[in-house]
Amino acid sequence: MATPKLPKYVYYFGGKKAEGKADMKSLLGGKGANLAEMVNIGLPVPAGFTITTEVCTYYYKNGQKYPKSLEKEIKDSLKKVETEMGAKFGDTKNPLLVSVRSGARASMPGMMDTILNLGLNDVTVEAMIKKTNNPRFAYDSYRRFVQMYGDVVLGLRPMDKHATDPFEEIIEMKKEQKKVKLDTELTAEDLKDLVAKFKAQIKKITGHDFPDNPMDQLWGAVGAVFSSWMNDRAKVYRKLNNIPEEWGTAVNVQSMVFGNMGEDSGTGVAFTRDAASGENIFYGEYLFNAQGEDVVAGVRTPHPISELKKDNKKIYGQLDDFRKKLELHYKDMMDIEFTIQQGKLWMLQCRVGKRTGFAAVRIAVDMVREKLISKEEALLRIEPNQLNQLLRPIFDPKEKQKAIAEGRYLTKGLNAGPGAASGKIAFSAQDAEEMAAKGHNVILVRNETSPEDIKGMSAAQGILTAKGGMTSHAALVARQMGKVCVAGCGALKIDYKKGIMTVDGKDIVIKEGENLSVDGTTGEVIYGEIKTQPSEVIKVLITKEMDEKDSKIYKTFKDLMVWADKAKKLGVRTNADQPDQASNAIAFGAEGIGLCRTEHMFFGGERITAVREMILSETLESRKNALAKLLPLQRDDFAGIFKVMEGRPVTIRTLDPPLHEFLPTNEKEVAEVAKELKVAPKKVTEKMAALHELNPMLGFRGCRLGIKYPEITEMQARAIFEAAVDVSKSGIKVKPEIMIPLVGNVNELKMQANIVNSVAAEVFAEKKKKVDYLVGTMIELPRAALTADEIAEVAQFFSFGTNDLTQTTLGLSRDDSASFLPAYVEKEIIPSDPFETIDQNGVGQLVEIGTSKGRSVNPDLKVGICGEHGGDPESVEFCHRTGLNYVSCSPFRVPIAKLAAARAALKDQLKPSAKKKSPKKK
Amino acid sequence: MATPKLPKYVYYFGGKKAEGKADMKSLLGGKGANLAEMVNIGLPVPAGFTITTEVCTYYYKNGQKYPKSLEKEIKDSLKKVETEMGAKFGDTKNPLLVSVRSGARASMPGMMDTILNLGLNDVTVEAMIKKTNNPRFAYDSYRRFVQMYGDVVLGLRPMDKHATDPFEEIIEMKKEQKKVKLDTELTAEDLKDLVAKFKAQIKKITGHDFPDNPMDQLWGAVGAVFSSWMNDRAKVYRKLNNIPEEWGTAVNVQSMVFGNMGEDSGTGVAFTRDAASGENIFYGEYLFNAQGEDVVAGVRTPHPISELKKDNKKIYGQLDDFRKKLELHYKDMMDIEFTIQQGKLWMLQCRVGKRTGFAAVRIAVDMVREKLISKEEALLRIEPNQLNQLLRPIFDPKEKQKAIAEGRYLTKGLNAGPGAASGKIAFSAQDAEEMAAKGHNVILVRNETSPEDIKGMSAAQGILTAKGGMTSHAALVARQMGKVCVAGCGALKIDYKKGIMTVDGKDIVIKEGENLSVDGTTGEVIYGEIKTQPSEVIKVLITKEMDEKDSKIYKTFKDLMVWADKAKKLGVRTNADQPDQASNAIAFGAEGIGLCRTEHMFFGGERITAVREMILSETLESRKNALAKLLPLQRDDFAGIFKVMEGRPVTIRTLDPPLHEFLPTNEKEVAEVAKELKVAPKKVTEKMAALHELNPMLGFRGCRLGIKYPEITEMQARAIFEAAVDVSKSGIKVKPEIMIPLVGNVNELKMQANIVNSVAAEVFAEKKKKVDYLVGTMIELPRAALTADEIAEVAQFFSFGTNDLTQTTLGLSRDDSASFLPAYVEKEIIPSDPFETIDQNGVGQLVEIGTSKGRSVNPDLKVGICGEHGGDPESVEFCHRTGLNYVSCSPFRVPIAKLAAARAALKDQLKPSAKKKSPKKK
Repeated sequence: MATPKLPKYVYYFGGKKAEGKADMKSLLGGKGANLAEMVNIGLPVPAGFTITTEVCTYYYKNGQKYPKSLEKEIKDSLKKVETEMGAKFGDTKNPLLVSVRSGARASMPGMMDTILNLGLNDVTVEAMIKKTNNPRFAYDSYRRFVQMYGDVVLGLRPMDKHATDPFEEIIEMKKEQKKVKLDTELTAEDLKDLVAKFKAQIKKITGHDFPDNPMDQLWGAVGAVFSSWMNDRAKVYRKLNNIPEEWGTAVNVQSMVFGNMGEDSGTGVAFTRDAASGENIFYGEYLFNAQGEDVVAGVRTPHPISELKKDNKKIYGQLDDFRKKLELHYKDMMDIEFTIQQGKLWMLQCRVGKRTGFAAVRIAVDMVREKLISKEEALLRIEPNQLNQLLRPIFDPKEKQKAIAEGRYLTKGLNAGPGAASGKIAFSAQDAEEMAAKGHNVILVRNETSPEDIKGMSAAQGILTAKGGMTSHAALVARQMGKVCVAGCGALKIDYKKGIMTVDGKDIVIKEGENLSVDGTTGEVIYGEIKTQPSEVIKVLITKEMDEKDSKIYKTFKDLMVWADKAKKLGVRTNADQPDQASNAIAFGAEGIGLCRTEHMFFGGERITAVREMILSETLESRKNALAKLLPLQRDDFAGIFKVMEGRPVTIRTLDPPLHEFLPTNEKEVAEVAKELKVAPKKVTEKMAALHELNPMLGFRGCRLGIKYPEITEMQARAIFEAAVDVSKSGIKVKPEIMIPLVGNVNELKMQANIVNSVAAEVFAEKKKKVDYLVGTMIELPRAALTADEIAEVAQFFSFGTNDLTQTTLGLSRDDSASFLPAYVEKEIIPSDPFETIDQNGVGQLVEIGTSKGRSVNPDLKVGICGEHGGDPESVEFCHRTGLNYVSCSPFRVPIAKLAAARAALKDQLKPSAKKKSPKKK
Repeated sequence: MATPKLPKYVYYFGGKKAEGKADMKSLLGGKGANLAEMVNIGLPVPAGFTITTEVCTYYYKNGQKYPKSLEKEIKDSLKKVETEMGAKFGDTKNPLLVSVRSGARASMPGMMDTILNLGLNDVTVEAMIKKTNNPRFAYDSYRRFVQMYGDVVLGLRPMDKHATDPFEEIIEMKKEQKKVKLDTELTAEDLKDLVAKFKAQIKKITGHDFPDNPMDQLWGAVGAVFSSWMNDRAKVYRKLNNIPEEWGTAVNVQSMVFGNMGEDSGTGVAFTRDAASGENIFYGEYLFNAQGEDVVAGVRTPHPISELKKDNKKIYGQLDDFRKKLELHYKDMMDIEFTIQQGKLWMLQCRVGKRTGFAAVRIAVDMVREKLISKEEALLRIEPNQLNQLLRPIFDPKEKQKAIAEGRYLTKGLNAGPGAASGKIAFSAQDAEEMAAKGHNVILVRNETSPEDIKGMSAAQGILTAKGGMTSHAALVARQMGKVCVAGCGALKIDYKKGIMTVDGKDIVIKEGENLSVDGTTGEVIYGEIKTQPSEVIKVLITKEMDEKDSKIYKTFKDLMVWADKAKKLGVRTNADQPDQASNAIAFGAEGIGLCRTEHMFFGGERITAVREMILSETLESRKNALAKLLPLQRDDFAGIFKVMEGRPVTIRTLDPPLHEFLPTNEKEVAEVAKELKVAPKKVTEKMAALHELNPMLGFRGCRLGIKYPEITEMQARAIFEAAVDVSKSGIKVKPEIMIPLVGNVNELKMQANIVNSVAAEVFAEKKKKVDYLVGTMIELPRAALTADEIAEVAQFFSFGTNDLTQTTLGLSRDDSASFLPAYVEKEIIPSDPFETIDQNGVGQLVEIGTSKGRSVNPDLKVGICGEHGGDPESVEFCHRTGLNYVSCSPFRVPIAKLAAARAALKDQLKPSAKKKSPKKK
């Protein structure tokens, strides 16, 4: 029997060679793997070692104990570090100081972050003074270390962020005593005294002495990292982001280098490209004689990286080389941290840089042009929803700039609902409704929203809340409604009684009715009005005109879309009811109309009058008379759409909503309608009462209308076919697909299809010309999906109406769910709003059942989905996997759906073993 | 190659031997097979032959042509008949006359019925005169033949029953001319003249001479039978009764015998037992010197069969022998027709007799006691719904008898909704509502009902319509509501304007507000009030007291139930919310409570006040205060039920309905509630507005309440467990099963089950005693069924809530569907109301999926259904097949469900090859 190889728990990095590498993220965490990788590609990295994530897993599986071999491995690695760095941990002459950092596979807020200067005690600090000849530096380092260690490892940091840190209190007292304002004004002696006071405080609170032994310090810090893996914030974050607990975290122990050892030292952070615009320029900030946190803390203003070129050409040259090396190596935009210690440049961190949607698109496309990555990689780099930034309305950039320059920037919250909105402040839903009714744009500002606020939210252009996160009621509902939303803006203080709000740190009192602007893409809140405008891409797409800047963004976008079209298997259609919508949708790349709702054509002017006349009819004859008035209007609608679509398929749904939606809602309207139609008002109200339903969603609508009143379907079919033949005669191809809604039983479809087919035959005979057409159905009831094999005997296509299918499958009214659905998402009963992302496990099963049963009798059955899931990337990916032929979504989401479809197809290729249902293009 | 055997198309019967037999019904039709069988068992049957159903099928498959061999086969059989009867078809001296009748597998109204005396013409009629020495008889027969032939074969019978038959017009003219009133007063000469006039009329209308050749007559009649298979009425009947078109009809050609050949001749019809009561007595009627139709037509009053014993002892003896022979042979109650021709008894027809529910039960049970059939056969003989007659309220028999004796019987319609009801007449739904509001019992009388009448129908005790069939709106809705209904009562004439109604043939004008009684079990309509009472069985079951008559019926019923219990595999529980309901249910045989709705306990007195206080609470504390008031009340409710149920399982559902159902509905109530709870009325109305939902069915209800307000579930669980422990301490076993409603996601159930289990542990610790209990869930959303494998990891039992599951799966609001569902049933889009009989193809699939997925992770999972399908025989059978453990239904339907369950199990045994999922008894 071979002796089993002992697991390796510690990986050394430093000098020219590391034991780990970039693709060992699951073992070493992101930070550790990247540190090793930088060593391997020859970048100067302070030596150190990574304790693997397996130790974390072991730790929790074994009653918070470490593997036996760990101690020896750490000691061995520490020795290598000492050799490389020429210093010794705990040495009284040349002590090695280290940092200890957590490092999970994915970056994770809530975890213990960093302990710096570990290894310092009353003895080593003196060695540091001798070594640097800088007592103030040494004691400042010592003070920082004790404070951090006390806060993080010994647990003295208060849980409530409004409570005061016990160490800060001591510092404040010291500053008062010394009558100084800034920490930097404290002397070495002051700092030495602080260290003593800190330690005393620690003893007082914890009952234990501060650990002076560097090895004890190290074990304490390592334990603190592992403990933080299981703290509440980390747990919540993992659940929200689907990070398994089993992953564990690694611990990085690394030699300290100091940017604050004088004017030949410094520190900085940088992105290898502009993380906001994506432009290929070196972008970052640095400070001489400073530690990392000084750059971030905002006490001193850091310099843009471009100035380093002048300040220190050599270092800049090295850094720029490293930048190029890193991009060539990682083939992505990287976020780096560096420190210059007495003229020597050290790389402390590198990771793939976070970026805006604009930058994501630009960087990916540019890198293809630079031949760094393939088109497919570019597509996989961009989250489809990031395209929103290129598509949603934005503030006029000049106006926004001006507003900020004028000091009107107030604060920043969570970017919960993308887009830009400007309007008058309302502090209650009712006020919002009233102000909107007067024609004002409204921003609803609340501490939190609740189901009672729905109408006000709907009336507002934007929603701003002081409390609540990305899954708060306001955030969920706003995204559902497509409203701009900034949530959880903690600096906001609202006084409902006085009708005013203030912003922490700003000297301003803002009243109800004043103007406010919220940017749901960035989370920014700005005082006063800022004009909004379509994004550059939208402007070009729709107006076809562009200036130079627009042109760049547009071309980048356009390239991406061309690649996506090539990669994707799914068709992407749009939901459009009018010629202008259809025209926009084509500009956005729609390949057809997947849902044309005919009822939207029933409103307005003489149409609604004719519709009401039909509803009030008591005989077939008078109903037919009323319908005859609608026929030419509907025919013109369809002709307009057919012309614009130029031969692309157009799926037209026959009348769907309950009839009461066409009737008046108040007495005044009743009187008008009665007068117009020359009937007694009582007749109108009686009809309203007769059509009133307890649950209209499950009532007399969809094909049920056409079954009871076949003459409605007849009129609509006639309008479609007359328009189709007329347009076809003018030389433009037409491809109508007539879709019967709310079918639950094949017999319903049979009856309606018979009507459609008879009318088609009649019209073709009258006009002496035929056009090809299909008759199909919405699958939007569970029963339709379950009996799809019967329905597919009649249907030539299916379109899953996943909005209604979600409502029925989950027994969840979209209109009413706001009273409890946010609580469901918050309590993690469901992972996300099922009206936003398809409920794959429930509704998805029905889509799969419906598709496979349908194709079992009709292998060529064309299957798509219409409804808002068609524009949701995760849902689009589901549709791809399920083998659908197309998705249909609102025009503005067509590019997002296309990118999602492309990514889904590419992911398929990456997993050759995964079961594939390749959809056919139709 | 062997020559294929030629198909045999004609089957002879007569003398001592027939070519067919009883089990050849699919080939010979019911009538033909039974005629053959009677011959075979030695009964005297006029000779004849049956043309098989295959000829019918051939006829329609081959462009309405006959098989070539048919003519020869008919001639051969005819010869045998001639030999047997000693007469010759078309003979000028001793002519054979025949009848031609249709005979499908199942008796079918709408088909051509009968042609008598076929073979007569101007020559053979003279031979008949010579033979019988009775010219009037001969010409009367001839007249009848020509008239029937003209009507039925030549199509002169008018389609509209209100139009006059051209032959009847000629007869009327003749009678006027002769100044006589009755047909019987016409002389042979008159009749001869009528024949001539009839023939002239036929020539005039059809353009063809009447066929004098007997063979032509025969072929004409045969063709008419086959044609009638495809007439509209027959088609409709077949569809309604699921009779396949392919079955076809047979044609029976049989020698005529005459009951009108003098005083030694006669005719009659009889049942071998009383078809109304089921009593084992010979029951029927006869007339001397008469033809069959005279008995039925009511021109002469026939004598009860008992009198035949005195009138003609020999014939009665023979007939009584035949009766016994038939019952011994067929082992069932038979319906027979006989004719005595000049002292010789002939049997013309025998078939299984139709019977009332009472008779069905009594005959089946008696026959077991007489050892004619087995218990299992008895169970299979009774349609479960026939038990309704023993269970629904009935009229006080004496009062009803008196009413009829007083001439108050008005008319009869379709027995569309069983039971008896008496009340004041309302001619509009609104009137019905108003009268009911004043405390009157109401009978709503309409030509037809429509969705607008729903409220009035609901307010009425009984519904009577002049139009519409068993599937009309009135009939469907009435059955759905459990209302007494007599539909399609054609004799009714309603004048809405005058507020009166009249009845054809009755000299009475009945006004709105007068009393009327309708018997939905029989279809009878009686003027004035008749007291209703529980049926005998119910009386005994509930009062446990019985007189001699009750005792007989009760014992019969009781025996049947004992047999059913033994045969069935499914458990049968009941839906009951209160101790008295539970007590009744046990009397009806319920084996447990499958659904105890706790919300019904929330109404009334201080309860509703506490509930409203809870709803209006704005803090957890005040909500808990309000709930604390409900706790002791709920605990008492549960204790009462546990006591009554004595250890039988009790499934208690936690709060289910939307909260707004507990709030007031009008201003007056709002004021009262506000006063009582000491809050501003505005607060009440605001809460009402906040809780208002567009689709409450899909809204904030079911476990969603308990998720948002866990304290409600806590209170309910505490009430259940405190009651359970208390009752258990008193020595009575308890078996609570806590059921969480409207679960769509396993996480919902987890959260609620956690609460229930924690409370249970608390109570058991407090009270120092444990009781066994289960926690399970309703499966009433499609998503729950689809993810049943996840849910069954937590649930200890499932109960399919098929009411709501039907609403969601079909997207069909039960409250709103009345506006189109009747049209759906009428147009045959769906076979039946899915709320009455489970939609096996849609909802049923989900029940199957849910059951099998649930059992896949939890093989012992107890699965039942609650809701109204649990009492519908067809649905019960489905539940048996699907392998459920139990059904739960309203107390009054428990016996029906038991019988249905027994039959389902027995049918399983009859089909040993069918796939069986034998449910386990739990």
